[in-house]
Amino acid sequence: MSEALSELRERLAEIHDLASAASILGWDQQVMMPARGAGVRAEQLGTLGRVVHERFTDDAIGRLLDAARPEPGSTGEALVRVARRDWEKARRVPSELAAEIARAGALGHQAWVEARERSDFEAFLPFLQRNVELKLRYVECFDGYEDPYDVLLDDYEEGMTSAEVGALFAELRAELVPLIAAVAERADAVEDEVLHGEFPVAGQRALVRGVLERLGWSREGWRLDEAPHPFATSFGPGDVRLTTRYDPGYVGMALYGAIHEFGHGLYESQIDPALARTPLGEGASLGVHESQSRLWENVVARGRPFAGFLHGELARTFPEAFAGVDAEAYYRAVNRVRPSLIRVEADEATYGLHIILRFELEREMIAGTIALRDLPEVWNARMRDDLGVEVPDDARGVLQDVHWSGGDIGYFATYALGNLIAAQLWERARAELPDLDSSLAAGDGSSLRAWLGDRVHRHGRCYPPRELVARVVGGPVAVAPFVAYLRAKLGPIYGL
Amino acid sequence: MSEALSELRERLAEIHDLASAASILGWDQQVMMPARGAGVRAEQLGTLGRVVHERFTDDAIGRLLDAARPEPGSTGEALVRVARRDWEKARRVPSELAAEIARAGALGHQAWVEARERSDFEAFLPFLQRNVELKLRYVECFDGYEDPYDVLLDDYEEGMTSAEVGALFAELRAELVPLIAAVAERADAVEDEVLHGEFPVAGQRALVRGVLERLGWSREGWRLDEAPHPFATSFGPGDVRLTTRYDPGYVGMALYGAIHEFGHGLYESQIDPALARTPLGEGASLGVHESQSRLWENVVARGRPFAGFLHGELARTFPEAFAGVDAEAYYRAVNRVRPSLIRVEADEATYGLHIILRFELEREMIAGTIALRDLPEVWNARMRDDLGVEVPDDARGVLQDVHWSGGDIGYFATYALGNLIAAQLWERARAELPDLDSSLAAGDGSSLRAWLGDRVHRHGRCYPPRELVARVVGGPVAVAPFVAYLRAKLGPIYGL
Repeated sequence: MSEALSELRERLAEIHDLASAASILGWDQQVMMPARGAGVRAEQLGTLGRVVHERFTDDAIGRLLDAARPEPGSTGEALVRVARRDWEKARRVPSELAAEIARAGALGHQAWVEARERSDFEAFLPFLQRNVELKLRYVECFDGYEDPYDVLLDDYEEGMTSAEVGALFAELRAELVPLIAAVAERADAVEDEVLHGEFPVAGQRALVRGVLERLGWSREGWRLDEAPHPFATSFGPGDVRLTTRYDPGYVGMALYGAIHEFGHGLYESQIDPALARTPLGEGASLGVHESQSRLWENVVARGRPFAGFLHGELARTFPEAFAGVDAEAYYRAVNRVRPSLIRVEADEATYGLHIILRFELEREMIAGTIALRDLPEVWNARMRDDLGVEVPDDARGVLQDVHWSGGDIGYFATYALGNLIAAQLWERARAELPDLDSSLAAGDGSSLRAWLGDRVHRHGRCYPPRELVARVVGGPVAVAPFVAYLRAKLGPIYGL
Repeated sequence: MSEALSELRERLAEIHDLASAASILGWDQQVMMPARGAGVRAEQLGTLGRVVHERFTDDAIGRLLDAARPEPGSTGEALVRVARRDWEKARRVPSELAAEIARAGALGHQAWVEARERSDFEAFLPFLQRNVELKLRYVECFDGYEDPYDVLLDDYEEGMTSAEVGALFAELRAELVPLIAAVAERADAVEDEVLHGEFPVAGQRALVRGVLERLGWSREGWRLDEAPHPFATSFGPGDVRLTTRYDPGYVGMALYGAIHEFGHGLYESQIDPALARTPLGEGASLGVHESQSRLWENVVARGRPFAGFLHGELARTFPEAFAGVDAEAYYRAVNRVRPSLIRVEADEATYGLHIILRFELEREMIAGTIALRDLPEVWNARMRDDLGVEVPDDARGVLQDVHWSGGDIGYFATYALGNLIAAQLWERARAELPDLDSSLAAGDGSSLRAWLGDRVHRHGRCYPPRELVARVVGGPVAVAPFVAYLRAKLGPIYGL
């Protein structure tokens, strides 16, 4: 390894340590910190953010990147590619603008919490305007893009363009709208009453822990805690942390939420330990990351084999609530499709339409072709047209999501891309793992876990997301496998 | 405020934020982190330590200290005094030596864990030799001291000298040895069987939480967790964290341990919030800090009024175990004096002799007047002479404490100084708070809490420890009040 590459690695490792420290402080804030610690914690996080930014955007990093000369095809080459990309993006944005975006995001978040509580879009509007204005200034720091929205999208999904996502989503929408309409005509065919009832939290905790342990969670390298807004994070391959939340009246929340976060956590836990403390030791992109959570939550845990295993665990834990409920009824219940108001509660089929709505509105916000004050009206009309639901108030409409309040514009698309990629990976895994269904039916996820580890996880960020997906599934992100998967599942359930 | 002072404050605040981040990572490591996270966590802590050291020892800090010109008598003046002291100490020690001390401490700690497990002093000896050798090199970085050990002591207790502590401890020893001998003759007068039995952990948890809430703990600004080696820490005045550990067979462990840590936490929680993010926002010294934990654990919670309240809480929580045990029996049980092997399990009276032994051995280690390999023999003889106990193995003798393994030489004295200061503060508080006993008997610690907040806590590190103590008690650290307190308590209990 050249001396420059070696020094670059050392500097990036230190920067990574400091960024990880910020992540640990963030986890602690959401899961552990007493409420009155918030003021000082904000200062601590602000300082860490500044130090990381200063150290990373230093001229010396640029000189080391130029001098590094890694071996072609080596990990060093991937390191230089990824670090150069991140460095050039970070250098283009003046520190003052970056700080102002962070500040406006914090203020916007606070305003959103209060505005959503009162369902008061007017009160949130000036903060949203400020966030959009700052994002437009952010876009101006870059050049060479076709569409200004491409700049934002690229922060969350490297290399994806608005045109490409727009085409995928148009195709997806054209498939989903008639499918959902067909299901709606037979809505009474599936009930999910079995998931609602009395499920004491102590029992749910033991159940969730047991299921995660079957999937690969272990006390030695993972945590499982509670948080009002569940998430997964990791501070190294041996320290992966999941959170979930428990609803004593609905057994689906904690169980499927935890399996979702497990998918994220498994990705991080299986990244090659040699990539730890480098910018390569992360998921390839948000879309690829989301493909992992959705693969485990939806494709595996709502699929017939593993749902059968879960049914057995549930019946054992909650014998009264599950008296007379067979595996088939449970399988149908967890796959019920029903248009609804809230994205995070949406089923697999309608979920995509929630995302497409947000993506299309974001493009218009950045293009300036929609007045921000008209968002509620446009939102509500679209929910009526696409999903047939009436939005009763903005809290359950345009104000429901946190993203825009903190300045995250360009993020939503990755959720739906995750669904598409998950279906593509699943198609491939089934072709390569002939015993997959029978092992999942026994509650054993080890073959899928190993396959994902080998094909996707261990590489971290060594390949650009597009290349990683192509290496595994043989082509670009595509809609057809997801639609085929949905039809194959919902056709028999709804008798379509 | 001068521009230089203002810039100094800003720089120190950032350094404080980074040091706090390291503390949060340390808390997380002891309380939350999965075991396999240890490798990466050590790197993260190493990086934070280096960045803090680099930023603090920067020449620019020295220039700002010179240029600051604070108003006489202002907080700025205290800030400059404390920061200059810390800066000059940090600058005298070459980074390589500081790093080597940290590294040897980490290796020594690991070796000690294994050596203690096997009670194998020989295996630990080379690591202890290395730690002492490095401490001697550390001492050489300084000048102007009378005794090399003064340099080490000053790191834990600003301004204290070996001669001064030696004189205090000689006086203390002369009082304790005959007192303990007199008690030993009437050893059967007090039993503590009531504290041993079956105390389910769930009940203990609720009890401890309830008692701490009466004392001033609140969910909004504090945490209470479990850790194998209990400690207290804080990351700002609104984020104070205690840990304790539960023994289902002994109710004293968790309860008195938690009250001890509460004393530390209360100190941090009542420091003037205006001192947050500065080097003044900490306890004045380890001795003063320990005076707070021992005041609450021993003087308050083993004192007759509050012990009566605790008896009521215990009898309510564990009615079977406490059937037929009255408040007087409980009071006597928690004040039983019995020479024993282990410092952390020692009673109030014998505790001092454990410390004096360690202090005197440390002085000899640094003076070179004892061969380190002779430590076990000297230790065991001294335990026999002073306390009349036979040390069966080094695990329960010279290997019992963690301090020397990590290079902490000079620390132990502060524990006994804490006992002395606690008794001095108590004497003063009783004189100024006429209703103190009756409020404590009702489980109400608010008047003592407020008094300590006003006299001690709010000042943080604004006064040197010697000056702070003198301001409150009217003189230097002294032995007499502690001995008088002990005699007043043990005399009636043991009929001396």
